[in-house]
Amino acid sequence: MLSVHLESGRVELRSQPLPRIPAGFARIRLLAAGICSTDLELQRGYYGFSGTPGHEFAGEVVAVHADESKDWLGRRVAGEINLACGKCEWCKRGLGRHCPTRTVLGIVRHPGAFREFLTLPVRNLHRVPTSISTEQAVFIEPVAAACEILAQVKIPRGDAVAVLGDGKLGLLVAQVLQAHGARVHLVGRHRDKMRIVEKRGVTTELVPKKLPRCAYRWVVDATGSAEGLRAAVTMCEPRGTVIMKSTVHGLISIDTAPVIVNEVTLVGSRCGRFEPALRLLAGKKIDVAGLIDEDFPLDQAPAAFQRAATKGVLKVLLRPSR
Amino acid sequence: MLSVHLESGRVELRSQPLPRIPAGFARIRLLAAGICSTDLELQRGYYGFSGTPGHEFAGEVVAVHADESKDWLGRRVAGEINLACGKCEWCKRGLGRHCPTRTVLGIVRHPGAFREFLTLPVRNLHRVPTSISTEQAVFIEPVAAACEILAQVKIPRGDAVAVLGDGKLGLLVAQVLQAHGARVHLVGRHRDKMRIVEKRGVTTELVPKKLPRCAYRWVVDATGSAEGLRAAVTMCEPRGTVIMKSTVHGLISIDTAPVIVNEVTLVGSRCGRFEPALRLLAGKKIDVAGLIDEDFPLDQAPAAFQRAATKGVLKVLLRPSR
Repeated sequence: MLSVHLESGRVELRSQPLPRIPAGFARIRLLAAGICSTDLELQRGYYGFSGTPGHEFAGEVVAVHADESKDWLGRRVAGEINLACGKCEWCKRGLGRHCPTRTVLGIVRHPGAFREFLTLPVRNLHRVPTSISTEQAVFIEPVAAACEILAQVKIPRGDAVAVLGDGKLGLLVAQVLQAHGARVHLVGRHRDKMRIVEKRGVTTELVPKKLPRCAYRWVVDATGSAEGLRAAVTMCEPRGTVIMKSTVHGLISIDTAPVIVNEVTLVGSRCGRFEPALRLLAGKKIDVAGLIDEDFPLDQAPAAFQRAATKGVLKVLLRPSR
Repeated sequence: MLSVHLESGRVELRSQPLPRIPAGFARIRLLAAGICSTDLELQRGYYGFSGTPGHEFAGEVVAVHADESKDWLGRRVAGEINLACGKCEWCKRGLGRHCPTRTVLGIVRHPGAFREFLTLPVRNLHRVPTSISTEQAVFIEPVAAACEILAQVKIPRGDAVAVLGDGKLGLLVAQVLQAHGARVHLVGRHRDKMRIVEKRGVTTELVPKKLPRCAYRWVVDATGSAEGLRAAVTMCEPRGTVIMKSTVHGLISIDTAPVIVNEVTLVGSRCGRFEPALRLLAGKKIDVAGLIDEDFPLDQAPAAFQRAATKGVLKVLLRPSR
């Protein structure tokens, strides 16, 4: 089968045997996958990664281990990306996403979804209802990451929230928080991208020359840049909360004085459970179609990565070449 | 009257008229004051400060504005340091400490306590009960700053907390959290200083070569150094909380990856209400006597500042020269 391989910054195509199916696992045929900013970071050497990336996908279960229910066969699924031990204290608390011995699909020691067939534990799988298309299902994982914010902090309905960054994650975060009932104001750099979420009631603004100081109780940094965190702290009111959604590789410098003087809370936020994302997508509360830039067949993965890394491009999808 | 003046890094003595007493204010005769790390930062140019510093003090009310109760006269008092408008939304929420138009005793546009007579609004004053000595009363403000942590985050009794830094604030934070019922582990650089809090049941450790990773749900950075925050994040477990108690002047560089991957919460923490500090000191729950290094008369303030800035020195007090 065809698989995509990252090696020293290069995107390569390889032919590999079908993955075997350990106890508890399913084999899944890829239907569609999305290239995430994290994949581009992996390409740049983040985590010292080499191997098959890909953690946003929809697929069809084609085989399960002998001990697992045959009901899964033929089902269209999405899959939670953290492969947890299921036994440690974190797992018992329902926080397998923080299991210290976890592997992570396409990120940490488990080959990812950019291949014709992948494997995941059956307990990671979620059936995709017919109301969610395969293209939309690719967004379940990033929408879940946006929903994670609401699992971490209690944002009252009606509260104003500033979201910084109109990239893929910023656009999803803005929609998720707006659907939750917050009054979201998105600050970005691209009128055309911001238009996607304006339809959902989100107000938008091009990054102003002078940022409003202490203006929001809630600020989400989804800029993916080092300046984002500084801007978010500036805009956050005393005793307010900044949610850190940006993965920036390397050290960033911040002035801790406004954090301490204004007693700002900074909350690091990563991936989330799939259930709320499935509900939002099934209920058509989130527009993801507008976020798709282009489709590439798997055997054109190098071109797809190049396209995804182009400034201003939103979601690039990969599909089996057939 | 004699007053201490900071100007371009120099500590000067000046003779000034008695301060006038505006409506709502009291005039207070200084009994004792403490030099805080913030005062040393002010001396170094933090906040572009010039003027009379000093915000940790005990004094005696010698006069009040005509409209205020004469009951205050002769009372031994400590005073909250933020002079708030009393009318804005922050003040109405009981958060005058974040009032945007506030001045701050000895820090922001209100002359401080390092002078023979100072002024504060009567509503900032707290009577010091006889069970608290004048020397102990000087610590009400920094103990309140340590107590602020418990006003911001809910630390369950019995939870393990790591406190980083065995300076003045670290030693107070360790005692306050231990008195609250947490199991405090202090990581510092001075066996002799840490002994002060060991008597209160705090366990202590010299900074180890290799920090324990993801070991504490709660970590307080009171190191006053840029490395402190990095160490605190390393030691904090997934979904745990780092409380930022260090004022570090200038930019510090941090790696946001562990904050985001482990979904760590960082909470900036500044000064607090005096009531819990008064309760702890009156109840003898906190040893502050052990933190006093030396007493200087006000007219030896330059030597006192020099002593306070000496590495390893704890609290230096100033008293009226008489």
